[in-house]
Amino acid sequence: MEADDDVPLILTCDEANSGLLGEDADRGDENGGGGNYDIVNNVVIPTPGPQNYRTQNVSLQQSWEMNYQEAAIYLQEGENNDKFFTHPRNPKALAAYLFAHNHLFYMMELLTGLLLMVLSLCEAPAVPSLRLDVYVHATLELLALVMVAFELCMKLRWLGFHTFIRHKRTMVKTCVLLLQFVEAIVVLIRQTSHLRVTRALRPIFLVDCRYCGAVRRNLRQIFQSLPPFIDILLLLLFFMVIFAILGFCLFSMNTADPYFTTLENSLVSLFVLLTTANFPDVMMPSYSKNRWSCVFFIVYLSIELYFVMNLLLAVVFDTFNDVEKTKFKSLLLHKRSAVDHAFQLLVSRQRPMGVSLKQFDGLMRFYRPRMSARDRFLTYKALNSSSASMLSLQDFYKFYEVIGLKWKARRIREHWFDDLPHTTFLIFKGINLIVKSKAFQYTMYAVVAINGVWILVETYSLNSGFSWSRFVPWSYIVFLTIYGVEVLLKVTGLGPTAYFSSGWNLFDFSVTVFAFLGLIALAFDMEPFYFIVVLRPFQLLRLFKIKRRYCNVLDTMFELFPRMASLGLTLIIFYYSFAIVGMEFFADVVYPNCCNTSTVADSYRLTNVTIGNKTVLEEGYYYLNNFNNILSSFVTLFELTVVNNWYITMEGVTSMTTHWSRLYFMTFYIVTMVVMTIIVAFILDAFVFRMNYSRKNRDVVENPEDENGIVFEVEVSRDEALTTLELYKQTCPGSFSINSLQKVLQDMDRSGHTSLVYLGRRSRTKSDLSMKMYVEEIQEWYAEFTEENLPQPDQILEQNLDSLVPEPLPS
Amino acid sequence: MEADDDVPLILTCDEANSGLLGEDADRGDENGGGGNYDIVNNVVIPTPGPQNYRTQNVSLQQSWEMNYQEAAIYLQEGENNDKFFTHPRNPKALAAYLFAHNHLFYMMELLTGLLLMVLSLCEAPAVPSLRLDVYVHATLELLALVMVAFELCMKLRWLGFHTFIRHKRTMVKTCVLLLQFVEAIVVLIRQTSHLRVTRALRPIFLVDCRYCGAVRRNLRQIFQSLPPFIDILLLLLFFMVIFAILGFCLFSMNTADPYFTTLENSLVSLFVLLTTANFPDVMMPSYSKNRWSCVFFIVYLSIELYFVMNLLLAVVFDTFNDVEKTKFKSLLLHKRSAVDHAFQLLVSRQRPMGVSLKQFDGLMRFYRPRMSARDRFLTYKALNSSSASMLSLQDFYKFYEVIGLKWKARRIREHWFDDLPHTTFLIFKGINLIVKSKAFQYTMYAVVAINGVWILVETYSLNSGFSWSRFVPWSYIVFLTIYGVEVLLKVTGLGPTAYFSSGWNLFDFSVTVFAFLGLIALAFDMEPFYFIVVLRPFQLLRLFKIKRRYCNVLDTMFELFPRMASLGLTLIIFYYSFAIVGMEFFADVVYPNCCNTSTVADSYRLTNVTIGNKTVLEEGYYYLNNFNNILSSFVTLFELTVVNNWYITMEGVTSMTTHWSRLYFMTFYIVTMVVMTIIVAFILDAFVFRMNYSRKNRDVVENPEDENGIVFEVEVSRDEALTTLELYKQTCPGSFSINSLQKVLQDMDRSGHTSLVYLGRRSRTKSDLSMKMYVEEIQEWYAEFTEENLPQPDQILEQNLDSLVPEPLPS
Repeated sequence: MEADDDVPLILTCDEANSGLLGEDADRGDENGGGGNYDIVNNVVIPTPGPQNYRTQNVSLQQSWEMNYQEAAIYLQEGENNDKFFTHPRNPKALAAYLFAHNHLFYMMELLTGLLLMVLSLCEAPAVPSLRLDVYVHATLELLALVMVAFELCMKLRWLGFHTFIRHKRTMVKTCVLLLQFVEAIVVLIRQTSHLRVTRALRPIFLVDCRYCGAVRRNLRQIFQSLPPFIDILLLLLFFMVIFAILGFCLFSMNTADPYFTTLENSLVSLFVLLTTANFPDVMMPSYSKNRWSCVFFIVYLSIELYFVMNLLLAVVFDTFNDVEKTKFKSLLLHKRSAVDHAFQLLVSRQRPMGVSLKQFDGLMRFYRPRMSARDRFLTYKALNSSSASMLSLQDFYKFYEVIGLKWKARRIREHWFDDLPHTTFLIFKGINLIVKSKAFQYTMYAVVAINGVWILVETYSLNSGFSWSRFVPWSYIVFLTIYGVEVLLKVTGLGPTAYFSSGWNLFDFSVTVFAFLGLIALAFDMEPFYFIVVLRPFQLLRLFKIKRRYCNVLDTMFELFPRMASLGLTLIIFYYSFAIVGMEFFADVVYPNCCNTSTVADSYRLTNVTIGNKTVLEEGYYYLNNFNNILSSFVTLFELTVVNNWYITMEGVTSMTTHWSRLYFMTFYIVTMVVMTIIVAFILDAFVFRMNYSRKNRDVVENPEDENGIVFEVEVSRDEALTTLELYKQTCPGSFSINSLQKVLQDMDRSGHTSLVYLGRRSRTKSDLSMKMYVEEIQEWYAEFTEENLPQPDQILEQNLDSLVPEPLPS
Repeated sequence: MEADDDVPLILTCDEANSGLLGEDADRGDENGGGGNYDIVNNVVIPTPGPQNYRTQNVSLQQSWEMNYQEAAIYLQEGENNDKFFTHPRNPKALAAYLFAHNHLFYMMELLTGLLLMVLSLCEAPAVPSLRLDVYVHATLELLALVMVAFELCMKLRWLGFHTFIRHKRTMVKTCVLLLQFVEAIVVLIRQTSHLRVTRALRPIFLVDCRYCGAVRRNLRQIFQSLPPFIDILLLLLFFMVIFAILGFCLFSMNTADPYFTTLENSLVSLFVLLTTANFPDVMMPSYSKNRWSCVFFIVYLSIELYFVMNLLLAVVFDTFNDVEKTKFKSLLLHKRSAVDHAFQLLVSRQRPMGVSLKQFDGLMRFYRPRMSARDRFLTYKALNSSSASMLSLQDFYKFYEVIGLKWKARRIREHWFDDLPHTTFLIFKGINLIVKSKAFQYTMYAVVAINGVWILVETYSLNSGFSWSRFVPWSYIVFLTIYGVEVLLKVTGLGPTAYFSSGWNLFDFSVTVFAFLGLIALAFDMEPFYFIVVLRPFQLLRLFKIKRRYCNVLDTMFELFPRMASLGLTLIIFYYSFAIVGMEFFADVVYPNCCNTSTVADSYRLTNVTIGNKTVLEEGYYYLNNFNNILSSFVTLFELTVVNNWYITMEGVTSMTTHWSRLYFMTFYIVTMVVMTIIVAFILDAFVFRMNYSRKNRDVVENPEDENGIVFEVEVSRDEALTTLELYKQTCPGSFSINSLQKVLQDMDRSGHTSLVYLGRRSRTKSDLSMKMYVEEIQEWYAEFTEENLPQPDQILEQNLDSLVPEPLPS
């Protein structure tokens, strides 16, 4: 397709250039997007320095390979939103970069991070069944820390000392690492744990690892929302102080009122009141004296709870909205800049305006080593919208949209059983028609509904209490049989692949399988698995398929799931830090019948009490909400998050320690408030966004099942396939992946078609939705971005081509 | 200015025409906006019927007057968003309309509505101090009902029987009225009150009155948000039922666990758990048996509380957004259509394209009878942007923007003391400079801050408790003196009018005055006013002026206030209905030491209890949360709204009545959840809208103080004023309001200028903001609207002029 002696426009292997390129990209990135065309200016003067790792007699082939690799790295950086100033600049850095950028390394990072966090299960206030000796867990910790240190060394080699120092996150990590090292060694020497609050910093190792990018993004978003949040928080606290003074002046004369005796008490009461956790109680003593005192509380709650707190949500929501858009913009421009960089590395000096298949394939071999030759070719075809012989820069900009596609030949057969003998075909066809009919669907809905009512009535009639042995009524078996038959019919009628490609079918299938497992568990008396039986009612969720809005809601729920999970993880990381601090200070401070000096003694009581003339066991249970080990701490912290009655835990702990403990609980409340507000803002934003989107694109929503992804169509003719196969045989003769291309030819031969249509699919991401929503703004951004980077790329390229220093062309 | 024998294009006084006009407008309004140009078609065939109230010899002057009046009515209908099908059609209707549309009548409506509601303070379970005998309050009620009936009769006369029947709200009101009548008479005859749950419908009379339009709008918005809300609510309840079955199966074997003994118990526990009111408690018995049971509760809360509840907010917020925009659109188009109608009535047959000052003035005399001649003239000038001799339809469309302006001559003098003698002038000038200096402002901020810290420290040191007698420390007097001096300086330096025109200054002033009053109260031992003294800390709010964001927040808060108040009123109306139902069923059911059979007996206990070997008074106080009279009911309902510990009240009442009582409490929870979600959505929407707005118009926010309103500028020359005066003297010679125009001339003479500039100001409303935000969409709406109403107004007018039936022109 093109001459074999094409010379790369840019010679990556040239250190000076590569370095400068990195510097440029960095500078460009700082002022809003990579300044990429300067590179071309810089390439003009290749200054071979001492670190120059390209020998003059490097072959043209090797030059290209190096360009491919660098372009692949740029595209990876674009994908991962790595800043270009961390781009590797010399062979050592490159080796370190490659070492530190593969799934094995990421896995190691993740595991060490997890190991360090999991250690707290076994350390000092350990979960009883998991307790380890000090020397065991301290050694494990040291081991993990050495691993982290090793990872940091690799990073240092890749980034170089200068960049390493400038990279804030890494520096913090290094400091924490040193501290932990020292502490671990101290623990090992003293053979006992000291007050190790710094363990609360351990999540840093987890957060820093590649797979936790989403958590890092969440944390960044939380920090970005903080300034306006804090402003409103101050307003909140200000009103609280004013009302505390008022409350103290108004109610401290009432000796029966324990809530306003001192200013501090008054403040704490109003803080708790803000969370409503003590509400009618805090009002009651004064209310019983004077009915008008309720005005104070009503005004306070109206201002603080119903106004300022909502204001907080509004401000966070607004910031969130804004940040989401800015983030989307900068990601988009970063990717565009990465594509620019890669494009410059892939074009040849002879044809600077386009990337040929050969170069593209070279890139892909580095970028996605496991991709088959067929898929590489199809990706190229998908990019090449104008069907020209080369990819233009405009084509290449679609790179990230196309790269995730899963390719499949368009099915020629309608059903999976089309090839079977006629009688069998008819049977299956029949089943297929039944399964697809409305009547069948609605019958199943009816069965599910009847099942639901049945379970309800059955459970309701078990007034005397529930016991497992009685709980295999015939209805269970009947309904299970019906569901089993339904699954079988559907699988045979639609074919397994079609059946399992729908989320709802998967759900049906797994619920049915679970019900079967439950039955087996009951039959074989496996008590710990009894709970599976009670999961049956989830079958009822199927009923929500009927109504449109629920489908939308549930779909959105599933779309949101990854993001929600990462938010949950963020919350858990905060929990972890607080749990460690809590354990260090409050382990074993509460126990049954403690806290007798506090107002909440009742909740901690475990004793026989005489009321009137009756004696009863009064069990307060709150001693269970303790910080005795990390699991208990997590449950306690969840209870504090839910906020109700949290002051009982606070007062209990406070009465057994000092009143400074309240600071811990109040800080925790405020931190969870921030995270929760962010979560609410996120859900709000996601749903409102989706609803706006579906309002804008009514047509798309009409077929939610069909259109729930991005689809590309590529037609491959026999000639094309042959030429490509030849090309591939030339470039990488021994490669196994060529088989996939040969299979394409075989498929064509077998079906007798001269061309095959391939469909590339992927699920739609929020980014795709944003692309559609902001379609006008995006053009503006691009325009700004190009303006900032001054002259048009094409012009510059042409200008510089003339002034390029002629390279010695190896034959 | 124009010939005196101008003939109105449309003759209102012609009944058939007027009737048709009304019908048309009605039809047009139903399909999205009034169809106004058909009117012109219909006028072609005046069909004098029996009700025709225009005698042939009616004078031209009278014709015009009638047109003015009808135009004024149209504009009023546009302003109040009254549908045009309620437009009066004949002289009787007109009389009734005029009778029913003035502030006296509105006031009467409001007062009867309020009287009926206030009656419940004195009826059966009455507030002790306000109890009235049965015959007294029943007679009062009958009286109020007769008033309502009278109002309804007036409405019937105005609307006509047919429209009256079709008007749903009025029909409901009539039915409720009849019911109340019957019940009131029954009460009067039996001399005792029966179970009068229907009193819960009384708010209808209040809601229906003119001044409660905002409440009606809120209610409509709530009902519009209901369908999606109910959908998600079902999802919520569905999950609740599934988890209730699960919970029953898992925990009912634990005899120590009172929360899951039966399916009903299980459902109630999970409903309460949704509100988090029983949180750690509901988990504790099972958690103490098996630590893993916390998973059940965590999963339940994560799904229901943190996901579905937020979804609810998202859906309501989205619907709210949508409804706000639709409402704005329909209001805008309704107003436009009203202006169209009015314009047609004001143009003369000779000059159908414009409204002259004379006609405009005629209109204004009906539309704003109390407006002075000067203001009428200035309004005309403000509308007349092209300075042509007549107002075009386009000019006239601005009617509603201009009508609310308050006119003032631009001040020629800079300070209020410019006219004083030189020495005095210098003194005041000095004060003015001091007061305006940054140094003075920041000194005052410092004083306020010091005062704040002082109060805090002082209150904190009062650890032994607070008592009034000790509470006039010297610091109070010192700071008060400083504030007093500040107020004096500012008033003298800026002049009273300038000083009091700023909201912040008003705030300062009132806080200072209150502090003085407090001091006087202390000095003269007026105990009930002591609370004024403790309001001092509110002075600290002034500190929030320093930071931009707070200014914005507080400004928005004040802007939102009317709307918030109406939402609060809506909530109170719901409260009222629930309070009546609660009083009818639960009055006097809880009392100290009641509810011994329930799990919450502790909270109702008022007894001596022996714990270990100590005897203490245990006071549960919850017997105070009762439905014994309407005020107690309101407080109880507020506590239920805040949700914390609401189940104690519920369980207490339930244990003394039947378990169906729970339905009342759960319904109330869901209703308040709807209203509260709407409130949150409203605050979110308002703030996000404002922030978006200020992001779009950075410049406006730069000068928030200056630009916080709409300003129109009109220059009046001496000649114009003279001509207008002449015109006015002709049209309404005896009118007192002409004086205002004469004063304009006097002002000109005194100042020696040949022209004066007048400024019209009004505060900016949400509608103004919306106008700016949706500026592009509005053009589209107008275009659609005009299209729907077919040919261009100008063309139609000209076409129809030719075919107009010639009217006999009285000389």
